[in-house]
Amino acid sequence: MELIASKEKLRELFAKFAPVGALEGGGNTRLAYGPEEDEMHRIFTETARSLGYRTWADDIGNSYAANFAEGAADKSTVIASHLDSVIEGGPYDGPVGVAAGLMVMEELKARGIEVPITVIAFRCEESANFKLATLGSELLTNQIDMKLVEKAVGRDGTPLPEVLKKRGYLGDIKRDLPYKEYIELHIEQARVLEAAGEDVGIVTAIAAAHRFTLHLSGMADHSGATPMSIRRDALTCAAEIILAIENAGRRESGNSSVATVGVVENRPNIINAVPGKVTLQIDIRGIDADSIARVETEVKTRIEGICKARNIDYELIGVDSKTPVTLDPRLVDDLYQSAVREGLKCRKMPSGAGHDAMMFPKVCPTAMVFIPCKDGISHNVKEHTEFEQMENGIRVILGYLAEKK
Amino acid sequence: MELIASKEKLRELFAKFAPVGALEGGGNTRLAYGPEEDEMHRIFTETARSLGYRTWADDIGNSYAANFAEGAADKSTVIASHLDSVIEGGPYDGPVGVAAGLMVMEELKARGIEVPITVIAFRCEESANFKLATLGSELLTNQIDMKLVEKAVGRDGTPLPEVLKKRGYLGDIKRDLPYKEYIELHIEQARVLEAAGEDVGIVTAIAAAHRFTLHLSGMADHSGATPMSIRRDALTCAAEIILAIENAGRRESGNSSVATVGVVENRPNIINAVPGKVTLQIDIRGIDADSIARVETEVKTRIEGICKARNIDYELIGVDSKTPVTLDPRLVDDLYQSAVREGLKCRKMPSGAGHDAMMFPKVCPTAMVFIPCKDGISHNVKEHTEFEQMENGIRVILGYLAEKK
Repeated sequence: MELIASKEKLRELFAKFAPVGALEGGGNTRLAYGPEEDEMHRIFTETARSLGYRTWADDIGNSYAANFAEGAADKSTVIASHLDSVIEGGPYDGPVGVAAGLMVMEELKARGIEVPITVIAFRCEESANFKLATLGSELLTNQIDMKLVEKAVGRDGTPLPEVLKKRGYLGDIKRDLPYKEYIELHIEQARVLEAAGEDVGIVTAIAAAHRFTLHLSGMADHSGATPMSIRRDALTCAAEIILAIENAGRRESGNSSVATVGVVENRPNIINAVPGKVTLQIDIRGIDADSIARVETEVKTRIEGICKARNIDYELIGVDSKTPVTLDPRLVDDLYQSAVREGLKCRKMPSGAGHDAMMFPKVCPTAMVFIPCKDGISHNVKEHTEFEQMENGIRVILGYLAEKK
Repeated sequence: MELIASKEKLRELFAKFAPVGALEGGGNTRLAYGPEEDEMHRIFTETARSLGYRTWADDIGNSYAANFAEGAADKSTVIASHLDSVIEGGPYDGPVGVAAGLMVMEELKARGIEVPITVIAFRCEESANFKLATLGSELLTNQIDMKLVEKAVGRDGTPLPEVLKKRGYLGDIKRDLPYKEYIELHIEQARVLEAAGEDVGIVTAIAAAHRFTLHLSGMADHSGATPMSIRRDALTCAAEIILAIENAGRRESGNSSVATVGVVENRPNIINAVPGKVTLQIDIRGIDADSIARVETEVKTRIEGICKARNIDYELIGVDSKTPVTLDPRLVDDLYQSAVREGLKCRKMPSGAGHDAMMFPKVCPTAMVFIPCKDGISHNVKEHTEFEQMENGIRVILGYLAEKK
């Protein structure tokens, strides 16, 4: 279905979003619960209202727009995403999904198709400000350990409970749950679609992250005077472990698992000393719990063996251990069929990144639609996607809703 | 010769040095041209003056003390070393040699032996702050590429030329060169003497350091969303190179060569991103120019191959390329004979570490005396040597000077 009512409005909305938290040289910083995120929500709400939709916010600042009268939320399809960003992020990670919700309502209206839609703009999907990701959707669906909320502090030192209280949160949220179903449009944040020349991906599962911190402790020595044979070099030990972790991830790549060392801290980190201490942060993800477990076991075994052979002391600390989320197979298939009908090149695929959608399989049938972003770049000021690519995603959702009606 | 005038003074001087840049749990950080190095030079100068010696400083802050009237420097024996340290270093690397100079003068005075001595405390022997080692002795002896000085920047971002200008350096130093001879007492910084149960080593040659900076450039990607197969991970590439460098050093260890990666900088260095850029600093050393060349060739070949296989762009920049330095055979032998007369167990040996002494063979006959340090540990807060071991070194120099008189 060609878009007949929303092409111009989509561009206008992104033009309104563009200056919010805009950085010199491109990109945006819109930290959760900061003035820029507030401004994004204000623009969303004002736009929705001006298009004739009912708008409101809940007690923690998630914003809503609906095309039906109050009281029938459980029969509505949610189209949602978030409006905050990482530090020095791009304009598309989040806003694409929120904008899509408004545009789908516009297309339905223009065609006289009556499908109840609830658009949600979540707060604080990014961990950049409070070190807690998907906070708005976790609080809404009551799936968060409140101890984490109580302990969280923003980058400016403000405790999160204080921030929430200021916005009227007193420990509970007035909820419209459940909904009929949940659909989120998002940029892929990787290069799989682009590399394959595909237009959209229908997400089948969202990966779980298992994260570890590894402390390696050898002996800092003079790099000129210490013979190779008596060194206890923490960095060469780390290097062997980094390759073992890569290898463990590669071995399970057929099951969509990945393993990454993202962070290295080396000490004393000077040219004339054999490194004595190294800390690594390890991220293992996948959508198949058995596969993740195999990667984890191999990584642990290899760390033990390498450290023993090199006489390096180590401490491996688990810092996160989530479970993969499977999305609704029927909804996934319906969206896939819609993409095919639209003539789009598409695939079913896992999501390696986390999203607000993770919270909804416990609430209602849930799926996601991915569109490519240029070079797979996201969480970066260079993040880019074309309006035509957003329109492809909107068409998939619209086609599905029109078909089901 | 037993020490009759300096045992107590040696201990007192180290007690004065001890609190400067002292770290909790032991060790010291005294970065070149930082407040701690300044304080070390202040203590040295004040102590020398209080013992009745003539003291002064040159235009770049090297400190001097002499037991003779101005004008006869060319007839004086230099006893010298440095007073700065690496980050989280020990209290003996450097100060031992400077202290020895003062103590030798005290012993000569107590015995009424008139030998003109110039004690020099050099600035910035360690590369920890400005990535330039033996700066004070290189500037004094006019053996430095001034382009390196102009480009050097301290850890706090201050350009080195600015630092030097503040201290009065306008492009040249008032020099007393040449001297009659140069002797430096230093801890060994390795385990050769300790393992052999020997008291002192007389250094025959000083290893050359060849240093490189390697910039690796892959692609920063989302660590959850990017399959292993399409990654261009700069850190796993770096890990393979670090192991190749270790291997190249191990292969030439029979020729006393070593190869070390001391510094790693990883970007963006966050848990949820595949590293896109890594910088390594590589240090290759030896006393055998052919062996060093073989290590270097292997390292370069392996870097090229690994980067090609992993589709990682790289830039390898040579930052230093010294030649091994042979010390004066006559002076080496004289010091060795003095050690034998003192009844000390001793050997002639190469130095794997660089020292200010490297600059002096072009100026005058040069030699070094090594004393053991515990477990060979140096450039580490655990660095330790006994006062009795320092006294052995002082006795070797004193005995030599008294014999030659």
